[in-house]
Amino acid sequence: MRKVTTLVLLAICSFAFGQIERVEPPNWWANMNSTELELLVYGDNISNLDPEFSGNINIKKVVKVENPNYLFVTVDTEDITAGTHTLSLKKGKRTVDSFNYEFKTRRDGSEQRKGFDSSDVIYLLMPDRFANGDPSNDSTSETIEKANREHQGGRHGGDIQGIIDHLDYINELGATTLWSTPLTLDNEKVYSYHGYASSDLYKIDPRYGSNEDFASLSAELHKRNMKHIMDFVPNHWGLSHWLIQDLPSSDWIHFWEGGENGFKRSNYIQTTQFDPYASEIDAKGCMDGWFDYTMPDMNENNPMLITYLVQNAIWWIESGDLDGIRVDTYPYNDKKGITEWVTRVMEEYPNFNVMGEIFMHETAHIAYWQKDSKVGAIQGFNSNLPTVMDFPLHDILPRVFKEDQQNWGDGVYRIYDHLTKDFLYPNINNLLIKMGNHDVNRINQEFDGDVDKYKMALTLIMTLRGIPQIYYGDEIGMLGDKGKGDGDIRRDFPGGWTGDEQDAFTSKGRTTKQNEYFEFTKNLLNWRKGKKAIHFGETLHFSPVDNVYVYFRYLPDNPNETVMVVLNNSNKDQKIDLARFEEGIQSHTKALEIISGMEYEINQNLDVAAKSGLVFELK
Amino acid sequence: MRKVTTLVLLAICSFAFGQIERVEPPNWWANMNSTELELLVYGDNISNLDPEFSGNINIKKVVKVENPNYLFVTVDTEDITAGTHTLSLKKGKRTVDSFNYEFKTRRDGSEQRKGFDSSDVIYLLMPDRFANGDPSNDSTSETIEKANREHQGGRHGGDIQGIIDHLDYINELGATTLWSTPLTLDNEKVYSYHGYASSDLYKIDPRYGSNEDFASLSAELHKRNMKHIMDFVPNHWGLSHWLIQDLPSSDWIHFWEGGENGFKRSNYIQTTQFDPYASEIDAKGCMDGWFDYTMPDMNENNPMLITYLVQNAIWWIESGDLDGIRVDTYPYNDKKGITEWVTRVMEEYPNFNVMGEIFMHETAHIAYWQKDSKVGAIQGFNSNLPTVMDFPLHDILPRVFKEDQQNWGDGVYRIYDHLTKDFLYPNINNLLIKMGNHDVNRINQEFDGDVDKYKMALTLIMTLRGIPQIYYGDEIGMLGDKGKGDGDIRRDFPGGWTGDEQDAFTSKGRTTKQNEYFEFTKNLLNWRKGKKAIHFGETLHFSPVDNVYVYFRYLPDNPNETVMVVLNNSNKDQKIDLARFEEGIQSHTKALEIISGMEYEINQNLDVAAKSGLVFELK
Repeated sequence: MRKVTTLVLLAICSFAFGQIERVEPPNWWANMNSTELELLVYGDNISNLDPEFSGNINIKKVVKVENPNYLFVTVDTEDITAGTHTLSLKKGKRTVDSFNYEFKTRRDGSEQRKGFDSSDVIYLLMPDRFANGDPSNDSTSETIEKANREHQGGRHGGDIQGIIDHLDYINELGATTLWSTPLTLDNEKVYSYHGYASSDLYKIDPRYGSNEDFASLSAELHKRNMKHIMDFVPNHWGLSHWLIQDLPSSDWIHFWEGGENGFKRSNYIQTTQFDPYASEIDAKGCMDGWFDYTMPDMNENNPMLITYLVQNAIWWIESGDLDGIRVDTYPYNDKKGITEWVTRVMEEYPNFNVMGEIFMHETAHIAYWQKDSKVGAIQGFNSNLPTVMDFPLHDILPRVFKEDQQNWGDGVYRIYDHLTKDFLYPNINNLLIKMGNHDVNRINQEFDGDVDKYKMALTLIMTLRGIPQIYYGDEIGMLGDKGKGDGDIRRDFPGGWTGDEQDAFTSKGRTTKQNEYFEFTKNLLNWRKGKKAIHFGETLHFSPVDNVYVYFRYLPDNPNETVMVVLNNSNKDQKIDLARFEEGIQSHTKALEIISGMEYEINQNLDVAAKSGLVFELK
Repeated sequence: MRKVTTLVLLAICSFAFGQIERVEPPNWWANMNSTELELLVYGDNISNLDPEFSGNINIKKVVKVENPNYLFVTVDTEDITAGTHTLSLKKGKRTVDSFNYEFKTRRDGSEQRKGFDSSDVIYLLMPDRFANGDPSNDSTSETIEKANREHQGGRHGGDIQGIIDHLDYINELGATTLWSTPLTLDNEKVYSYHGYASSDLYKIDPRYGSNEDFASLSAELHKRNMKHIMDFVPNHWGLSHWLIQDLPSSDWIHFWEGGENGFKRSNYIQTTQFDPYASEIDAKGCMDGWFDYTMPDMNENNPMLITYLVQNAIWWIESGDLDGIRVDTYPYNDKKGITEWVTRVMEEYPNFNVMGEIFMHETAHIAYWQKDSKVGAIQGFNSNLPTVMDFPLHDILPRVFKEDQQNWGDGVYRIYDHLTKDFLYPNINNLLIKMGNHDVNRINQEFDGDVDKYKMALTLIMTLRGIPQIYYGDEIGMLGDKGKGDGDIRRDFPGGWTGDEQDAFTSKGRTTKQNEYFEFTKNLLNWRKGKKAIHFGETLHFSPVDNVYVYFRYLPDNPNETVMVVLNNSNKDQKIDLARFEEGIQSHTKALEIISGMEYEINQNLDVAAKSGLVFELK
């Protein structure tokens, strides 16, 4: 067996022989849909011992692996009632160690929990950079990297309490759903703040809070009728993960001979997942290569790993009372393994939602990955992944609103043209749409701080098909240039730290310009909350003329729910003849413009100011 | 009934009442697969008369339309033997006029004629601009526009005889198939040279020659083992077409109220054909709008028009002994109508090939149109069109070879990435690939006359999957800038006209540089002729590194037919380690480089000069 580092020996020596050091999942629930539970039992040379469960719990299978420090114990949970049962490890008749294992009672309706959907607006934040609610946990004795707010790539101290403290702010803004980047322990020495190199998939990083705090965050969200999405990273774990440090068997990770710790960088060529001409070496180079030095690539061809990941997801859904999961670097995962993972999670929670980060740039490539995709079906593939992300839309947004002239194919025509590929998606509502996230230039940086461009882009995002997502700080016009380092697009939210120069969480604390951003966003998001035609309606659009794009969202069986959006992306005021849009306007003659609150007659011409949008509810 | 112009009255007055002026198709064949033939009989007030056929020819149906000058007579040809039969038009018992109608004997194997395919290389030319073989027909009394070689957009005098005179040149070059832009009569007053506004779908323009000359062209091609593709334009005819001048009924064209002659320009938004959100007004604006002032848009929702077009195509296939058809502006046609057209043509000739000009820029959009497309099937659509065109490849070629650095996604990576969408096509071999045509900048213009870039692009095109097409003159480095007018990309081939300063058809007449272009092209095209791995083989490619792209074409069951292509698109000489390409090289150790004719050892490193390609047959 390969040892990733020699730390393992030190770790093992600190425990007595045959003692149970960890059991994962640390607890489970009675009355789960899937009745098989595979417990990972870890301890020094534990594989010599025989597991036995108290009560009538039936051990179906015991698997020993290369590493004697592991036992995998599969139990049948079908008839288990809630309560604590004892798992004993025996040598002959002698009990060497035992562990009290709890089966909890599930929340009412847990199985039928409803995932986020296109009626929601997602607020994405990075917990280290949002708000520091508990300065006492900025550094802890058990975690290596200490807080250093001066360092762009360091730990800044934001935490779960900080998020909870400002849920009213997010709620006021009109977002309905929180997606925080990962909160589980990331105990890397440096750059641990992003959390994508997990050291423990069952433990919230103490610099963010506790597992209980994580559950409280959900509870506080639910109190406000809001939803909670967890960021999940099955493709790679942190090099400092305890299990990576003492691998059960060498086939839990993709180990590259000759590389330090088995490292070889991914070639990041995600297209090899379906490219019929791709070489093996390239395909493996993407799927099996490591995302980064500190991120060993997990071998999801190993069924035990998949079960570990399925149970981990279910454990968080139950214990964290989640409303959705976002999966990192989806196409870097081993295709068969990740498909089994999402299939099993969705089987447990049929109304749940999981979205995959398909960071690709062609609609056909992205549509490939959505559940029941006809594009995937060309290769006999069904991902079973409910929600994917419209990165190509994100790709064009900065250009679109900077192009004042609609030359052939420019300006808002790019959006119109982009949408002509929508038929490739089996479920157009399950498509995340966004102006930015934590991996790219901030949208307001792209717009050079031009609030008018932001307003147009936001208007688009909030009225188009799909699930809109905004990135913390966009709503106050925050800037961030990826060219200056990831930290620049992940700046601290002003007011999140005691002593901050300003507090942009409050109207008073915001500058006039920040308030312009905020109020516009707030109005639009809050308006969107009740609009079924936006959430689940059909789309009708008209080819842009002179950089003016007009489209309708409507419910076929309720004409009173029709919304008309007019985006004048040119740099001149325009009077547009509404006759061309008769198919959308139908018999309506009046309309309420929801940004200004003004009533309009819509029987003839419409004045639209340069670089502005109008959103009408037709009367 | 709407009259397109008043010319019609003048036209009718010149014929006596009840006389048959035209019958179309002008003849037919015995033993056709489809046994129904719908004759269009045209003459002044002819609809009052009753048609009768000699022999046992059964008239199944007689249809009268709005315009009394037409009769549509459907006959059952099942039992017809070859020979001439008399069609009489009667008033009671009196025969007012009659017409000798010939059913010819089909060529042996006509039904099973094999269309062009990926074993071919197509040479595309514009007949007015290639060679003037018969100066006596440059202007004729029956055609309006007279020859004027000084005018970029005028008639220059090229003709069918000019093409026949230079078939040996095209054959020597290694092209196997000729595609000439339309040769049927285009009797517009100006800009008639392009031929896309036909005045008579059954008549070769006399300035190009006769219908017999057209058949001779095929015969001369076949003598050389070459193929003949006809350019077919069902979407629009010329305003001066006799039938447009006296429409059978108003629903033969899309007539726009208020427009001159019923004109309204197409919006050219081809995506409306499948965009689920497209408005009716936009969809009609594309499909029913006119391609240009002089090109009325045919209404292919009219089944009589479709039958007219099907019979016209069959008529040319039989009389012109064709090996393929290229269809102009395919997505501008009415979808249902054009699908019926191609289905009926392919039913008559199951091994034939028809390619549609799908001038779009997204692989998914183009794949939609290929027969048995899974992309089309998303909307329940099956075009039945065998061959489509890889415009997106054409779009990137100029950029690719101008990008010396492979930054992320640049240079040859664009090609690699483009091919990752190939799985969207149901038949990847039936894909036309090209560096240019008569509608875009000439490739050598794009390359600023850099022969090395041309060589790389040609190497790519000649070794990739699909059916390569070159555009006349590219093989001698001709330039042409569309920005200076269409005429600039459609310059006369030097040597095609008596008295031309040079004769680039001959080695002696070409400059040294022209010979460099020509010889390279000739070598590559002639080599390609015998290479099954290129014609129908599989592809294996490797992600480009440092702007070097390596791919293999191979036959799974014959490793001796493996071809390895290496394109070094960087501006530095490179030594590449071949170990990475083991999957393609397999056990081969030697290779013949076919451009230089040199033998290589391929066990370790390979030297590739800057901006060059190598094509190896593995030994």
